[in-house]
Amino acid sequence: MPTEVYVAGVGMTKFGKSTLSLPQLMVEAASKAIVDARVSTIDYVFIGVMSVEEFTGESNFAALITDRLGLPGIPSSRVETASSTGSAVFESAFYAVASGYHRNVLIIAGEKMTHLPTAQTTRILAEVIDQGERKYGASMPSLAAMITRRYQHDARLSDERLQSILSKVAIKNHYNGSLNPYAQFRKIITAEDYFGSRYVSTPLRTYDCAPITDGAVAIVLTLDKKLIRVSGLGHATDTLAVRHRDSLTSFKSTRLAAWQAYNMAKLSPKDISFAEVHDAFTPFEIIGTEDLGFFPHGEGWMAVEEGATSIKGRLPINPSGGLKARGHPVGASGLAQIAEVAQQLRGEMEASRQIPGARIGLTQNIGGLANNNLVTILERTDRYRPIPVYFKPDYDPGDIRPRPIPEEPSSVDSGILETYTTLYTTPEGMPSPLTLGFLSTPDGRLIMARSRQENLKIGQAVDVEKEGDLYYLQPSPSPEKDAEGVRKWLHRALSPTERKEENP
Amino acid sequence: MPTEVYVAGVGMTKFGKSTLSLPQLMVEAASKAIVDARVSTIDYVFIGVMSVEEFTGESNFAALITDRLGLPGIPSSRVETASSTGSAVFESAFYAVASGYHRNVLIIAGEKMTHLPTAQTTRILAEVIDQGERKYGASMPSLAAMITRRYQHDARLSDERLQSILSKVAIKNHYNGSLNPYAQFRKIITAEDYFGSRYVSTPLRTYDCAPITDGAVAIVLTLDKKLIRVSGLGHATDTLAVRHRDSLTSFKSTRLAAWQAYNMAKLSPKDISFAEVHDAFTPFEIIGTEDLGFFPHGEGWMAVEEGATSIKGRLPINPSGGLKARGHPVGASGLAQIAEVAQQLRGEMEASRQIPGARIGLTQNIGGLANNNLVTILERTDRYRPIPVYFKPDYDPGDIRPRPIPEEPSSVDSGILETYTTLYTTPEGMPSPLTLGFLSTPDGRLIMARSRQENLKIGQAVDVEKEGDLYYLQPSPSPEKDAEGVRKWLHRALSPTERKEENP
Repeated sequence: MPTEVYVAGVGMTKFGKSTLSLPQLMVEAASKAIVDARVSTIDYVFIGVMSVEEFTGESNFAALITDRLGLPGIPSSRVETASSTGSAVFESAFYAVASGYHRNVLIIAGEKMTHLPTAQTTRILAEVIDQGERKYGASMPSLAAMITRRYQHDARLSDERLQSILSKVAIKNHYNGSLNPYAQFRKIITAEDYFGSRYVSTPLRTYDCAPITDGAVAIVLTLDKKLIRVSGLGHATDTLAVRHRDSLTSFKSTRLAAWQAYNMAKLSPKDISFAEVHDAFTPFEIIGTEDLGFFPHGEGWMAVEEGATSIKGRLPINPSGGLKARGHPVGASGLAQIAEVAQQLRGEMEASRQIPGARIGLTQNIGGLANNNLVTILERTDRYRPIPVYFKPDYDPGDIRPRPIPEEPSSVDSGILETYTTLYTTPEGMPSPLTLGFLSTPDGRLIMARSRQENLKIGQAVDVEKEGDLYYLQPSPSPEKDAEGVRKWLHRALSPTERKEENP
Repeated sequence: MPTEVYVAGVGMTKFGKSTLSLPQLMVEAASKAIVDARVSTIDYVFIGVMSVEEFTGESNFAALITDRLGLPGIPSSRVETASSTGSAVFESAFYAVASGYHRNVLIIAGEKMTHLPTAQTTRILAEVIDQGERKYGASMPSLAAMITRRYQHDARLSDERLQSILSKVAIKNHYNGSLNPYAQFRKIITAEDYFGSRYVSTPLRTYDCAPITDGAVAIVLTLDKKLIRVSGLGHATDTLAVRHRDSLTSFKSTRLAAWQAYNMAKLSPKDISFAEVHDAFTPFEIIGTEDLGFFPHGEGWMAVEEGATSIKGRLPINPSGGLKARGHPVGASGLAQIAEVAQQLRGEMEASRQIPGARIGLTQNIGGLANNNLVTILERTDRYRPIPVYFKPDYDPGDIRPRPIPEEPSSVDSGILETYTTLYTTPEGMPSPLTLGFLSTPDGRLIMARSRQENLKIGQAVDVEKEGDLYYLQPSPSPEKDAEGVRKWLHRALSPTERKEENP
C-alpha cells in the first residue's frame, strides 16, 4: 500500500491588486496555513512561483521566503510549470511526504503581477508560447480565441449562441466569486455587462479572460491522518506548439492527466462532487469539463446552458469563482483551486456557497497553452470507501498515444483556414490589431499565419506567402483549390459533433 | 526500510562557450543519460535551470524540454534553488522515485550564459543577494571576497600566504580540469598565471572565480537495483542577508545539510573517499571542506598546502576540476558534481583521473550566497555494508540552532570593521571600483557600508554616516572609541584559530 498523504492546513490571502510585496503575501498565506494545520514543526518548504524574476527582479526565491518566514535552516525548493505551478508544487511536495522523508511540508504558491504595465505582463506571459507562434505576435488570449472559434465551428454554434454560452460561464463564475470573500471580483455581472465589454481577441471579450492578480495560497501536507486525503494526482505535457497538436478543441494533456488521476484514486468522473477547472478563458472551462469526462466532447456547452455547472447545479464547476472571478496570480492559481476543494470538503465555507455533502473534489490546472496540465483529486476520509485492487475508471481519455512532433513544412503556398482571430491587446513590441490564423497545408500539417484582412471564414481556401520570417494568408480567388488532401491533421474522433447540423 | 533509489545513467555535454541553444544542450545530455541507463521508459522529467527566463527569454521550460526531447505527454516540472538548482532537482526527483509513484525519472539540469554581456550576467546573478546588500552594489564575488578576508584574518594568514594558498586551489582544480574531457578549461595554470591575473574583488583574482559557462547534465534515477545508490541527502537554508549570519567564515547551511546527509547515509566524514565541493570561489572550497567535517574549522587551508586534496592525495577534492575549471553553468553545476561522483564510483573515468578504490563520494552545492545548500552522498552497492539502526555520525556540525533574524538597527554612527573588499567588476548600473565593508555596531549587529577609501584594516574603529539609502564608513580619528561592546555578533566557537599567533 502506498503511503497516504493528508491536507493538514490551508491559508490564503485575498486575491486582487495588493499593496503588499510577494514575500509579504506568501508569509500571510503561510502563517494562516500553519495555524490552521496545528503542526509544531515544518520539515520542508516548497515554493511555487511562475515568473518571479521577471515580475519582481528577485531570484533565489525559495531561500528568500524561508528567510522572511523566520525559518532559516529549513530546506526549501521552488517548483515551476508556468500557469500550473500551483498544482505542480503540490505534486512535488506530495512526493516528498509520500517518500517518508518528511512529515509536515509547507507549500506556498503566489504571484505579484499588478504593478507592471499590461503590455509588459502580456509579454512575460507570452514567453510560455512556442517561439514559432510567439514571433507572429500570438499571445495566450489569441491562441485561446482561435481554439474557441474552432470549437464553435465543430459544435455548429451560431455567433450569438456562442457568445450567450460564454457569457453564462462568466456570469456564473462572477456570481460564485461574489460569495467568496477571497475573490478579486465580488460583484455580480449581467449579460449587459458581458456584451458591453470590449473584445480582447475575437470572439473573446474582457469578461472571457481571467484578470491580472496578486495573491498567495499555502497548504500544509502531512503523514498524520487528517480529514482530507490526497487521493489522485495526474500530470502530463503536450507539444509546446499548438500547431503540432492532434486537436484544437480538446487538450490531450488534460485527458492524460485525468486518466492518471482517476486510476490512482480508483474513481470515475461520476464520483466527483464538484470541480475547480482552469478557466483562464471561459471556453477553457467548457473544454475542461469535456476532457475530464464530465460531459461528452463537444457537448460541455449544453451543461452551461442547462445550469448543471452552477453552484446549486448537479456538478458545480468553479464554486470559488474560478480564475475568472477569484483572480489568476499565475503561479498560485493551481494551489488556490486545491485550497478551495479542501475547504469545501471540510464543510467550512460560508453557508451561501458551501456545496452540501461534497465528499470528493477535483482540480484541473493548465500550464502554458495546455502543455503542462495537472489533475488533482482530494477526498474526505471519514466514511469508509472500499478501494478495489483491480479497477478501470469509467472514463474514455480518447487517443492519448504519444505521436512524433511533425517537421515544419519547407514551403507553403496554399491551405484551408482552420481557425482565426483578431487580437487587440498585443504583446509589448507587436502591432495592434493583429489577425492570426491556423491553416492546414495540403500535406496535412498545421501552420500559423498573419492576415491583413479580418473578414475570414473557417474552411475557406487561402493563399499563403512568406514575408521575412512570417507567413501571410489571404482568401484564395479559386476557392475549390486544394480542398482535397487537407485536414489530415484533425482527428475527427475528437469532434463527434462535427457531422451534426447546427444545434437548434 | 525506506525505498532505495539508484543512479541508472549519466550524461553531459562538454562545458564551455557553446553555439548550441540551451534546449539543444539539454537534449544532448539527456540522450546520453538515457542510452547509458538502458531504460525502456521514462516516467517523469525533472528540469533544473536557474534564471532561464532572464538568460534566454523562454518560460514554460519544463514543457519546452519534453517537447524537444520528443516526449510530449510525459509529466515534467522545473525545480530551482539558485546555484544549487542541480542538486535540488536531483533531490525532488529522488522523492518522486522514493515515493514509489515513478520507476524511471530523468533529471536534466543546464544553463546558457555566455551569450550575454558580463555586466548583464553579473546583474542577473546578483539577484540572488538580499536587497539590503544588493543596493550597495554587492555582487557574488564581492561577498565571497569579504568572507575570504575575514577567514584570512581569523586564521592569521599573511597576504602572501593567503594568495599562495588560493593559487594552489586554482592550480589543483585547473590540473584536474586538464584531465577532464568535459571541462571548460583544459589547460594547466601556473603560479605565474595566477599572480598575473587581475583582481575581481580584492583579494580574489580572476583565477579565484568560476567562469561563465554553457552546459547541461542529465541523470536517470530508478527503483531497479544498480551499482550506485543514493545514500544520503541533506538540504538547508540560511538567512538571505550575509549580515544576519552567526559567522562569516563558515556556512551553517552546509553544516546542517551535511549533518542530515551523514545521518541519512549512516556515514561519517572519514568514510568519504572523495568529494566535489562548490568552488564558485577558491576560498569556498576550503570553507566547504571544513564545514563538511573533513578538516577542523580554520585549518582547511593546511590540507591545501599539504596537497591532501589533490587528485592523488588522501582526500581528493574536485577531481572533475570543480566549478573553477569544469565550468559553472549555474543551474547545472550541482548535477554535474553528482554525475562526476557517480562516474568515479563506477570506475569509468580516464585512467589519469580515476580515483582508485573509490566507494563513497559526496557533493556539496551552494545556492545563492550559501543560503540554500545541499549535500548528496552516493555509494557503490557491490560490497555489503552493515547499516546500524542506532547511529550518530562522527561529525560535529557546530551550532546549527535556528536563530531569529535580527532587526535592522535604526541608526548607526560608529562600529568596528569586520571585513572589506574593493570590487572592480560591478553589476550593471553600479559605479566601479567600489569598496564595501561589513562592520559590527556597538549593539552587536552587522551592517554593510560603502567606503570612499580602499586602504582599510579589519578591526579598526570606523565612523558611519548615512547618505540617502546607504551607509558610508571611514576610519575613525579616535581609534579606541567603541572598542568595547562590539563583536557580540561573531561566534568565536567557529574560529578556533583566532587565538593563535600568525601561522608560521
